[in-house]
Amino acid sequence: MSVPILPPEAGRPPCIALLSRVLDMRYLMPAFQALRPDIEWRTGDALGKPEDIDAAVCWQPPHGVLRTLPNLRLIQSIGAGVDHIYADPALPRHVPVCRVAEAGMTAGMSTYVAWAVINRHRHFPDYTRNSVQGIWRESPIVPPSEHRVGIAGLGRLGLAAARALAALGYRVSGWSRSPKTDLPEGITGYHGAAGLPPLLAAADTLVCLLPLTDDTRGFLNADTFAQMPRGAHVVNAGRGEHLVAQDLLAALASGQLGYATLDATPEEPLPQGHAFWNHPGILVTPHIATRTPAEAIARQTLENLLAVQSGKRPETCADAARGY
Amino acid sequence: MSVPILPPEAGRPPCIALLSRVLDMRYLMPAFQALRPDIEWRTGDALGKPEDIDAAVCWQPPHGVLRTLPNLRLIQSIGAGVDHIYADPALPRHVPVCRVAEAGMTAGMSTYVAWAVINRHRHFPDYTRNSVQGIWRESPIVPPSEHRVGIAGLGRLGLAAARALAALGYRVSGWSRSPKTDLPEGITGYHGAAGLPPLLAAADTLVCLLPLTDDTRGFLNADTFAQMPRGAHVVNAGRGEHLVAQDLLAALASGQLGYATLDATPEEPLPQGHAFWNHPGILVTPHIATRTPAEAIARQTLENLLAVQSGKRPETCADAARGY
Ligand SMILES: NC(=O)c1ccc[n+]([C@@H]2O[C@H](COP(=O)([O-])OP(=O)(O)OC[C@H]3O[C@@H](n4cnc5c(N)ncnc54)[C@H](OP(=O)(O)O)[C@@H]3O)[C@@H](O)[C@H]2O)c1
Ligand SMILES: NC(=O)c1ccc[n+]([C@@H]2O[C@H](COP(=O)([O-])OP(=O)(O)OC[C@H]3O[C@@H](n4cnc5c(N)ncnc54)[C@H](OP(=O)(O)O)[C@@H]3O)[C@@H](O)[C@H]2O)c1
Repeated sequence: MSVPILPPEAGRPPCIALLSRVLDMRYLMPAFQALRPDIEWRTGDALGKPEDIDAAVCWQPPHGVLRTLPNLRLIQSIGAGVDHIYADPALPRHVPVCRVAEAGMTAGMSTYVAWAVINRHRHFPDYTRNSVQGIWRESPIVPPSEHRVGIAGLGRLGLAAARALAALGYRVSGWSRSPKTDLPEGITGYHGAAGLPPLLAAADTLVCLLPLTDDTRGFLNADTFAQMPRGAHVVNAGRGEHLVAQDLLAALASGQLGYATLDATPEEPLPQGHAFWNHPGILVTPHIATRTPAEAIARQTLENLLAVQSGKRPETCADAARGY
Repeated sequence: MSVPILPPEAGRPPCIALLSRVLDMRYLMPAFQALRPDIEWRTGDALGKPEDIDAAVCWQPPHGVLRTLPNLRLIQSIGAGVDHIYADPALPRHVPVCRVAEAGMTAGMSTYVAWAVINRHRHFPDYTRNSVQGIWRESPIVPPSEHRVGIAGLGRLGLAAARALAALGYRVSGWSRSPKTDLPEGITGYHGAAGLPPLLAAADTLVCLLPLTDDTRGFLNADTFAQMPRGAHVVNAGRGEHLVAQDLLAALASGQLGYATLDATPEEPLPQGHAFWNHPGILVTPHIATRTPAEAIARQTLENLLAVQSGKRPETCADAARGY
C-alpha cells in the first residue's frame, strides 16, 4: 500500500463535510486523518460556517444541504454510484460529482456476480437444501460454455465481471450505452436500444450492473423478462429502482423467469413480510455485493480535491448530462 | 465440434467392453456409434469371447475381469481419475490405463471450486439462510486479495481452478508432486513433502484436487487441519478416501476448521443419518463437481485405441508407478 502523500498544498488544511441521511459517516475519519492529520471536519448536524467547506463526502446526502455550501469544490460519493447524489433536486450543478473506483471493490463485485451466476446455473440452491435434508440427488450438468450470461452495463464493474465469467468458461455478452471497440476476446458487445433485444435473447442469466439514471430506472421489467429465454435468471447488483418488483413476482409465478438474485431491493433494509423474503425463486442479499475500503475513499477524495483545486477534472467525475 | 473422423484402420471394427459395478454404461453407446457405426459391444454380464475385446471402458470395474481379456490393448476411465481402476488387485499391469481430459469437464470443475470458495468467503450460507428467514444482516466483507486459497493438486483440474480463482482476485497457491516452472503469474507453487506446510499455513481455503493414490489417501486429516489457519474452509473435490471423516468432524467441533464443502464422501451415495448431513459446518454435494460428456469419452477412447494399436502411448495415460 502507498503511504500518505498529500502535502498541505492549499495553505490551509482541507475542510470536509460528511453527509448522509442513512449512515454514520464518521467511520471514515481515521482513514482521512492517516493521510492528512490536520484535516478539518464537519458533520451534517454541525456544519459550522458553510463557506469553510471544500468538499462533501456523501452517501444519500440530505437534500438541499449541498447548495448551501458556497465554496464547495467537490462532491464525492463513497461508492461506485452517484445516483444518490443526483437525486438531490437542489444539487449545485457547477460542482464536480466524483465516484470511487478501486480494484478491491471491483474484485468484490466480480466474486458476487460469479457466485450468483454459478449458484443458479449449477443448481446449488437445490444442493444446499438437499444437504440439510439428507438427500443425495444429482441435477443436470450443463458445461459453462453452454450457459449464456448477459451483462447490462459494461463499465468498470460490469467489464470486470464479464472477464471473470469468461475466464470461468461462460459465454458472455455485455451491453452499454456507447459502442465498445476494445472488448477482451470472447466477450460480445451490444450497445444502445438496438443492442438490447439480442442481449436479452441470449441471456440465460442477466446481470444488471447499470448505474441508476432516468434511462435505466425500471430496466428490469415485464417487457425485459419477456425477451429472455424461458426460465432465465436475473441478478440485480445495480440499484433497487432498476427492478419493477411486481413484474419480477409475476414473471417468477408464470415461469418466464426461473430465479432472481437481488443485492439491491426497492427498500433497504427490505421490510419484514415483503414478498421477496422466503420466496423459493428469490435470494435476497443485504446490499453486500461489494464495499469500498475507507482508505480508498479518503485517498480518492483528497486526490480529487487537489485536482479540482488545480483546475483539473478528476478521471472519476460523473457526467451530469448522462447522470452517471 | 469436430465430426466423426476415425477410419476403420484396424481392418475389423473395434470391440469395446463396458465395465462398471455401479453405473449402467450403455448410455455411452450412441456417442461411440456416432463415431464408429460398426463398433462391437460387450457388457459385463455378456462378455462373449474374451479374446475379441480390444478396449475396456471403465468406472469402478468389477475386480478380476480385466485380467481375463487376453487381447486387451486399452483400459479407459470415463473420468479424470483412474484410482477406481488401479483398485483392482488383479489389474493386468501391461495394459495402458487412460483417463479423460476435456475442456468442458475442466471448466465444470472450475465453476464448482470457484462457487465453493466464494460461497464461504463471502458468507453466502448465512445470506441464503437469512433470505428464507427474512433477516437483513450484513457480514464482514474481506476483499478476495486478502483471502488465500491453497490448491492441493496442480494438474489439469487444479491448475484451471487456480487460474479461475486468480482471475477473480484471490491469492492462490498450489501444491504438486513435482516442481512447476511455468505457473501463470500470481500463482505460487509448492511441491513435495517440504512444500506442504507453507501451503497449509497460507490456506484460508484448502481445495483438494489430488488424485487418489497410496500417497494421498487420508490427506485431509487432523494433522493437515492443524497446520491451517484457525476457522479455515476445506473443499474436497477429489475422492472420499482423501478425507478422514472423524478428523473433519472433530476439527469443525473444535473450531479449527470453520466449514467444509464435500463433493466426494467416504460412501457414495452418502447414507441416510450420516453425520455430514444437516451439519451446520458442512455442505455435501452428490459428486457433481463436473462430468465428462459422452462424446469426449467415445472420441478419446477410439483415439487412444488407435494410438496404442500403432505403438504410441496416449498423452492421457496414467503412470502405474505413480498411481495417477
Ligand atoms: N450492489 C452493490 O453493492 C453495488 C456496489 C457498487 C456499485 N453498484 C452499482 O453498479 C453500477 C455500475 O458501476 P460501474 O462502476 O461499473 O459504473 P460505470 O463504470 O459508470 O459503468 C456504467 C455502465 O453502464 C452503461 N450504461 C449507462 N447507461 C446506460 C444505458 N442507458 N443503456 C445502456 N448502457 C448504459 C455504461 O455505458 P458506457 O460504457 O457507454 O458509458 C457503462 O458501460 C453503479 O452505478 C451502482 O449502481 C452496486
Ligand atoms: N468430484 C468430481 O466430480 C471429480 C471429477 C473429476 C476429477 N476428480 C478428481 O480430481 C483429481 C485430479 O484430476 P486431474 O485431472 O487434475 O489430475 P492430474 O492432471 O493427474 O493432476 C494431479 C495433480 O496432483 C498432484 N499430485 C499427485 N500426487 C501427489 C502427491 N503425492 N503430492 C503432491 N501432489 C500430488 C500431481 O502432481 P504432478 O503435477 O507433480 O504430477 C498433479 O499436479 C482426479 O484424480 C479425481 O480424483 C473429481
